[in-house]
This record gives sequence, structure tokens and C-alpha cells, in this order.
Amino acid sequence: MKNFLIGSLLTALVLAPATPAMAEGPDYALVIHGGAGVITRESMSPETESAYRALLADVLAAGKDVLAAGGTSLDAVETVIRLMEDSPLFNAGKGAVFTEAGVNEMDASIMEGRTLNAGAVAGVKTLRNPISAARAVMEKSDHVFLAREGAEAFAAAQGLTIVDPEYFWTQNRWDALQKAKAKRDQAKDAKHGTVGCVALDRNGDIAAGTSTGGMTMKMWGRIGDSPVIGAGTYADNRTCGVSATGHGEFFIRNVVAYDICALMAYRGLPLAEAAEQVINVKLVAQQATGGVVALDAQGNVAMTFNTQGMYRGFLKSTGETGVFIFKDE
Amino acid sequence: MKNFLIGSLLTALVLAPATPAMAEGPDYALVIHGGAGVITRESMSPETESAYRALLADVLAAGKDVLAAGGTSLDAVETVIRLMEDSPLFNAGKGAVFTEAGVNEMDASIMEGRTLNAGAVAGVKTLRNPISAARAVMEKSDHVFLAREGAEAFAAAQGLTIVDPEYFWTQNRWDALQKAKAKRDQAKDAKHGTVGCVALDRNGDIAAGTSTGGMTMKMWGRIGDSPVIGAGTYADNRTCGVSATGHGEFFIRNVVAYDICALMAYRGLPLAEAAEQVINVKLVAQQATGGVVALDAQGNVAMTFNTQGMYRGFLKSTGETGVFIFKDE
Repeated sequence: MKNFLIGSLLTALVLAPATPAMAEGPDYALVIHGGAGVITRESMSPETESAYRALLADVLAAGKDVLAAGGTSLDAVETVIRLMEDSPLFNAGKGAVFTEAGVNEMDASIMEGRTLNAGAVAGVKTLRNPISAARAVMEKSDHVFLAREGAEAFAAAQGLTIVDPEYFWTQNRWDALQKAKAKRDQAKDAKHGTVGCVALDRNGDIAAGTSTGGMTMKMWGRIGDSPVIGAGTYADNRTCGVSATGHGEFFIRNVVAYDICALMAYRGLPLAEAAEQVINVKLVAQQATGGVVALDAQGNVAMTFNTQGMYRGFLKSTGETGVFIFKDE
Repeated sequence: MKNFLIGSLLTALVLAPATPAMAEGPDYALVIHGGAGVITRESMSPETESAYRALLADVLAAGKDVLAAGGTSLDAVETVIRLMEDSPLFNAGKGAVFTEAGVNEMDASIMEGRTLNAGAVAGVKTLRNPISAARAVMEKSDHVFLAREGAEAFAAAQGLTIVDPEYFWTQNRWDALQKAKAKRDQAKDAKHGTVGCVALDRNGDIAAGTSTGGMTMKMWGRIGDSPVIGAGTYADNRTCGVSATGHGEFFIRNVVAYDICALMAYRGLPLAEAAEQVINVKLVAQQATGGVVALDAQGNVAMTFNTQGMYRGFLKSTGETGVFIFKDE
């Protein structure tokens, strides 16, 4: 009888709805990345380093404003990523790298952990903020994933800001393309300059988003992991939200973002161990470079990468916060 | 000491390389689908039913020829899917459905379970056999996923067969678009007419592939689950190969193909239970319709769906084989 009671109690506990995140962790939390890669103190002037740190801090503050005021994690993710897209410092939006053909083709995706709703766009060339187009696909269409002119026509019909492709021309990225062409060596010294954000709001809802210009000198029409739900972005309130940055082809093959969720759901691993397993065991075994930022419903944060650096930062309602670039920070 | 010996023996067994599949199961195996949906005896003339059964049997025989001769699972998958693409009976290649704009936009993907290499194309309009383009992306490019004109230009450069878009015009599919437009009701009576194949070869290697015209009246540029590695297609020798067909948006959000592999890898579920869990528990809870065909390295086959029918068939070197359409078969 006693065993029966204990058994029933355990069953009840297991089946009980998850306690809201605020009971155990922070009221809200936010984690961002601006890409991973060969990012070292030697490769960067003090001025550039300061500019990145200042922007990461500003962006976190903007996301905090949304979450502190009771805004949704989805709003926080969109706000943060729009700011990063508007900066030339990151490989997304304004700062997108060039394809082999010398144009800028951007990808983005967003996902809501409460509903598993998701939206993504790929290969867009005229949308100032691809992350907002991804959100419009999620909220205003019957589809999850729209590509190229179809995505652009849809976004225009939704009233999103259209720009001349010339808006995305930056000297830095143009020079990078010429250098890559001269070396015919796309991947090796690539910085994976994608941007991403995962947020947990006061309701305990997680959202994740990712936006990128892809790889310098990528082939015309190449889609990386960023707009691929499961690879570059995933969010599920029951496990975690993830935004990835890295060598996209490997991130697609390894279904990186969802794999971290699956290790939590099916193996019971805590967030940090699940991220470690995927980024520093599985991917390292395949010599695949990159990283993720992630957070779970308890507000635990992971910023896990196997490269020399990753632009990254986090912020929690408890006051904990930080902005980092190099591996040894 | 005895316990120590038993412990060591167990460790040795666990760590030993997996025995080749032929030791336990068939030398080779093959499973195919031609789409799931509202497919009932009432909805189909006896002539149509016979035509489908005959084609499924022919296609299995062609795949068997490849595998019996010692060909790779990758060759078998490509051979089978090319035949299905060349038939007007299935929603892939020749028989592709029309988008809202009245054109045919096709998606396909392929994956190799030994290496986790993969290739995919989306939104192609001039490639007679999208599955061969997906394979070319995997084998001849640095990328996994190419879209639209970029994918077509790449495939043309690889010498694949280019056709006039008019090649894909069929009366049936055109009528279906007019009917869907009249009803403004895309999803509900949709047959998910994707085609797919998973094969296990004599070397114990698994490959999977999927090809589709997408949904009738889909939005311009819409990408479904078929070309999304992890959603529509996945293959890993250590677990299984999967090809999916269904309401693509839900299949993307739920990372259906990889989720079956993850349940095997992380929960230790056998193939049939993993497929059942994803298709008949998770997806049914979301009212998402569709199915998968899958096989593991032991040659176990699953053909799991939550709709009234799925065109499907399998064949093993042991002689077991069958072709089915309706749920009650």
C-alpha cells in the first residue's frame, strides 16, 4: 500500500504541469551571439573590440527593456536581432557578407517554444530585417519556410521595410569577398558571423531566432543552417531554446539545435551538458566549427562553442549579466 | 574476480564494433512511399488503384536490381525516386502539383547514413529529376542545400537533364489547382503526394531520399519539409533512415525524420516504436497528418502513418515484399 501511494505520488509529480520558471529561476533571461570563429585578441584592434562589446551590451539592454516590461520572448528576440541586423558589425542584415556572385543573400528564422510555431526566410536580398520577415511568415502565412522572391513579395505585402540591395554593400565585406576569391578558400578562416538570440519571458515562454548573411563566397542560392528549423534555430518550452552559428552544412547534417533539445528530453541531460555533447563532442569529432547560445525554462544559460571566440552575452532579471568575445573569458 | 571478468566481457561486447547487418537481418532492404492522405477505396477507381500498385511493384523491382547486384543504398534510392519522379502518378517531378501562381516548384533531398553527408534542392522548376540534383549538391558542391535558380544553374553545370517547365504541366494537377482555388482550402483535403525511399545495402549502409512538388496552391517560394534534412529526410547508420510525407509545416516544426533517429539513439526505442511515437502520438496531438517510411541497419522496416492511406511498399533480400495503399491492408 505504501509503495502504491509512493508510486501514485511519483506519477502525479511526473504528470503535473511544469512549474512556471519564476518559481526557481530568474523572471526573465536573454542570451545572444554575434557569430563564432577565429576571433582572437591578435586579430582585432582595441577599438574594434570596444565597438563589439558596446554593441553587445546595448543590444542586451534593449532586450531587457522588452522583457522587464512584461513583453514576450518573441518580441525580445525580434527586437534584439533587428538591432544586430542594422549594425554593420555582424554578418546579418546591413553587414551581410557577399556571395560568390557578389550579392547579399540573407536567411533568418524564428521559433516560439510554447506552440512550436516557426517561420523562416531564405535567400532574401531586399528585406532590411529578415528576422521580421521570418516572424511574418510564422504569424501571417500558412507556411513555415519561404524562399527568395516569394519571401520578398510576401514580406512586402505585409508592409515590411524593403531596401535597395545596395543598402547591404559594405567595404569590409566586399574586401573579404575579394580576399576569399584570391585564395579560393572559403571555409577555413571563415568567421561564422551569424547573429542569434534566445529569450525567456515572465510567462515562462521561450523564443529563439537566428539571422545571417551566410558564408563569404557561398554559391548562388546556398541555404545554410540559420533558416533551417532544427539546425540553426529551435525552441520548445519543455526543454530549451537554441540559436546556432557555425559551418552551416555540418549544423544541418547534425540537426544541431534540435539535437540539444532531444538530449534534454530523451536523455535527461541538463542544458549545459547537452550543448557540450553536441558542440564539443559530436561536432568536434567531425572537425565542424561553431557554437550555440541556449537557455532553458529555468533560466539556465549556455554559450558553448568550439572556436577561438564567439561574440556573446547574457542577462537575467536577477542582475547577472556579461558580454564576452574570446574563449578564455 | 568472476564479476570482474563478466564486467569486462560486457564492456567488450558493448564497445565492439556493430556486427554487419547481414549477420542478423536481410542482406539488403528497401522501403518506399508515394504520399499519404485521404486515400480510400471509395476515392479511387479500380483502374487507378491497379496502376498505383503496378508502379509501386515496378519501382521496388528496380531498386532490388541495384541492391541485389551489390549497388549502394544511395544508388538504389536515386534509381527508385527517379522512376517515381518520371511518373505522373506521384506529386514529384512529372506529376508535381501547381503553386498558387500556377507553376511547378519542386524540392528534394538525399542523405547517406554512413557519413551523414546530405544534399537538397528547393524551388527548382526546370530539373527533370530533382533527386539527382540533390545528390549532385551532396557529392559535387561544398554545400548541403541550394535553392531555386542557383540550384538549377549548378545542376545544369553538372550535366543534369534540364526540361522546359511545360514538361511538368499535367491536366490532373491543373484541375486540382482550380478546385483548390475555388474552395480556398488548401490543406484539408490535400493528399501529401511526396515520394520517398530508404534503402539498406549489402555493406550495411543506409540512405534515404525524398522528392516532392509540395502542396497544391502553395505560396510562391514555399519550402516544405521534403528538402529539409532532419524534417523530411534523415539517415544515420547507427539508428535508421527515414523519408517523410505529410503536412510539411508540422513536419518541420517537429523535426520528424531526425526525431525518430533521436528516440532510437537516446531512448533506445526500436524503430517501429520510435516511428509510432512521432507519427501517432506527437503529430496526432497536433492534428498533423502524414507518415514515414523507415528502416534500420538490421533491415527492420516501418511504414507508419496517421492518414486513411499511404502508397507504400517494401522488399527484403529474404523474399519478404508487399505493396499497400489503404490503412486496413
